Amino acid sequence: MRDVAVIGIGLTEFGEKWDTSFRSLCVEAGAKALEDANLDGDQIDEMFVGNMSGGRFVLQEHIGALISDYSGLASTNHIPSTRTEAACASGGLAFRQAVTTVASGMQDIVIAAGVEKMTDVGGGETTDTLAGAADREWEGIYGVTFPALYAMIAQDYMHRYGLTREQLAQVAVKNHYNGARNPIAQFRKEISIEAVMRSTLVADPLRLLDCSPVTDGAAAVIVCPLERAKEFTDTPIQVLASTQATDTLSLHDRRDISTLDATVAAGNRAFDMAKLERKDIDFVEVHDCFTIAELCAIEDLGFCKKGEAGKLTEEGYTALDGDLPINPSGGLKACGHPVGATGVKQICEIVEQLRGEASGRQVANAEIGMSHNVGGTGATVVCNILRRA
Amino acid sequence: MRDVAVIGIGLTEFGEKWDTSFRSLCVEAGAKALEDANLDGDQIDEMFVGNMSGGRFVLQEHIGALISDYSGLASTNHIPSTRTEAACASGGLAFRQAVTTVASGMQDIVIAAGVEKMTDVGGGETTDTLAGAADREWEGIYGVTFPALYAMIAQDYMHRYGLTREQLAQVAVKNHYNGARNPIAQFRKEISIEAVMRSTLVADPLRLLDCSPVTDGAAAVIVCPLERAKEFTDTPIQVLASTQATDTLSLHDRRDISTLDATVAAGNRAFDMAKLERKDIDFVEVHDCFTIAELCAIEDLGFCKKGEAGKLTEEGYTALDGDLPINPSGGLKACGHPVGATGVKQICEIVEQLRGEASGRQVANAEIGMSHNVGGTGATVVCNILRRA
Repeated sequence: MRDVAVIGIGLTEFGEKWDTSFRSLCVEAGAKALEDANLDGDQIDEMFVGNMSGGRFVLQEHIGALISDYSGLASTNHIPSTRTEAACASGGLAFRQAVTTVASGMQDIVIAAGVEKMTDVGGGETTDTLAGAADREWEGIYGVTFPALYAMIAQDYMHRYGLTREQLAQVAVKNHYNGARNPIAQFRKEISIEAVMRSTLVADPLRLLDCSPVTDGAAAVIVCPLERAKEFTDTPIQVLASTQATDTLSLHDRRDISTLDATVAAGNRAFDMAKLERKDIDFVEVHDCFTIAELCAIEDLGFCKKGEAGKLTEEGYTALDGDLPINPSGGLKACGHPVGATGVKQICEIVEQLRGEASGRQVANAEIGMSHNVGGTGATVVCNILRRA
Repeated sequence: MRDVAVIGIGLTEFGEKWDTSFRSLCVEAGAKALEDANLDGDQIDEMFVGNMSGGRFVLQEHIGALISDYSGLASTNHIPSTRTEAACASGGLAFRQAVTTVASGMQDIVIAAGVEKMTDVGGGETTDTLAGAADREWEGIYGVTFPALYAMIAQDYMHRYGLTREQLAQVAVKNHYNGARNPIAQFRKEISIEAVMRSTLVADPLRLLDCSPVTDGAAAVIVCPLERAKEFTDTPIQVLASTQATDTLSLHDRRDISTLDATVAAGNRAFDMAKLERKDIDFVEVHDCFTIAELCAIEDLGFCKKGEAGKLTEEGYTALDGDLPINPSGGLKACGHPVGATGVKQICEIVEQLRGEASGRQVANAEIGMSHNVGGTGATVVCNILRRA
């Protein structure tokens, strides 16, 4: 297998984008990535697009070809373009397939994008569409929603490990602090623990400010063989590992609902593939779709023992200036969560940090970063480890 | 890149399967493929699942993990599993990603499946869901359906090349002859030219018997490195080429609506990759979603000049005992078209033919076979060339 590097990144603003469309968002991110890599579109060999539910959100499938078309690459170069889907991990899959394709020698320059347009559908429809990430026959059909599923995880976790409501709130407070320093974030404002505690109860114990928002947005990343990367950029970022794992779709089928075994598996595979240890990682972008999910992720990736992440968060260990900054981008909580785009946006953030271009939210001495992208309640997990080349 | 071989195939019956489910169909095909390759499930390293529109047909996304879960591989081995989507070419993408993954050296034993459950949704919903393969903003929103889009192609083609209505009907007659000899086919009965000509008009000039049906079904294929293939089977089938191309989603954006440029591109790439010429191919499974599509495919793949395929079909050139048998399986027309499964089913048919196991529909002296899988009206095309190893 060939070594692979990231040579370009592009992001749209995340938020409620009533004045643009699904396809325009994705093309905007791609154009920015091309500009960042000093590439013309006709130098792209292949494309992957992560998207969860275009079929329901915008009544559009065939999304790989759509984005190839609107990028102007379909009628000229007829490049191959593939949509990947694993609910909220769809973007992570697109990036991993791009890495595999370059590693194989099949293609040289490959773009991975992720996109979701979630604000153009009616009320309850969004929640039901998102429930398509859970098991429709055993969960969705009985009315369970994602806040409810993660609330069950949180209840179990609090009962077993003595997590306090304030510790949980601190995850959101930290991520809003970081998001306030991220120019693309949906919520660029700091919040207090009191604000989280006072916010509307969604599914006990989770309150509104424990939940990531509904978001429109897109992200794109361009990869090529490491040996060619300097042709396009002075600051290539090497992909040391890109791994993926599955678990049961239904929460009730797990051996332990507050440990995500797919995170454990994908994480272990990533450290094996990169030949690194936990202490080598300088910062992590984890999948904090709900505050409780960030705590599980820190533990299940092996950065501390089960039950300790709440206390570490309270003590500032995971803050921007802490020993292991978690979610410098603001995470899904503050940066926003356009579900198909999130896995690719995490890579963009890691690349910005490793280039030293993250300005107000820059992690000091960032040399190695890790991403963790979850589908559903953990039925799919994708992990990546990247390093300054 | 490593050479890749197919070591196992599995197919469900195709048809209206009211007594089974989306997930059960896919697991059935996978189990048959494992048995065919003499493998246990825990020997599978990675999975790809082609599916067009689970989100709308069965309200289920996250389909890679779902099938990993119901195959029993999620909670034990936590294998990576990725859904691929490109409308009716979703299965073709799954197979190609499996081939790329093995070729890269990332994994050894990979299963590619395709599945669609289309008969559990209400009336008009199916047609509108399928319209998600076309451009929603420029085609679907104005009420265009897939029979209407292919009818425009047929009108243009008949006008320019003098194709007769009887020649068009002969495509369906031939494919039903073959399908009558395929134990998994949805329509196992022969039809006459008169029956086609008398069938209900759907979109002029296309009649009911010009159209592939709405179908439930699944297919699965297992690939591994060629050098390991004899561990699992006495009859490995080598993948000589697996290629993919895109074109505009909208028909009105094409330079020529009755030539599918993505077929031309993917076909040329396949012959380049396999280092073969057209005359080396013994039979082809093409994407005959409508009778006109088969004629375009034969021409756009380069097997004859534009405008000649109707006459060749009339003369028996593409019949089971002709010079170049097309769609020995019965094609989408008679075998059925569970959209996400079709691209994988084509590979199953080619493998059965190359093994000499196709009994009543066996192509004589079949050594090299080709597949051609289309998404939409040709915005995605996947081609594969396989040979007895």
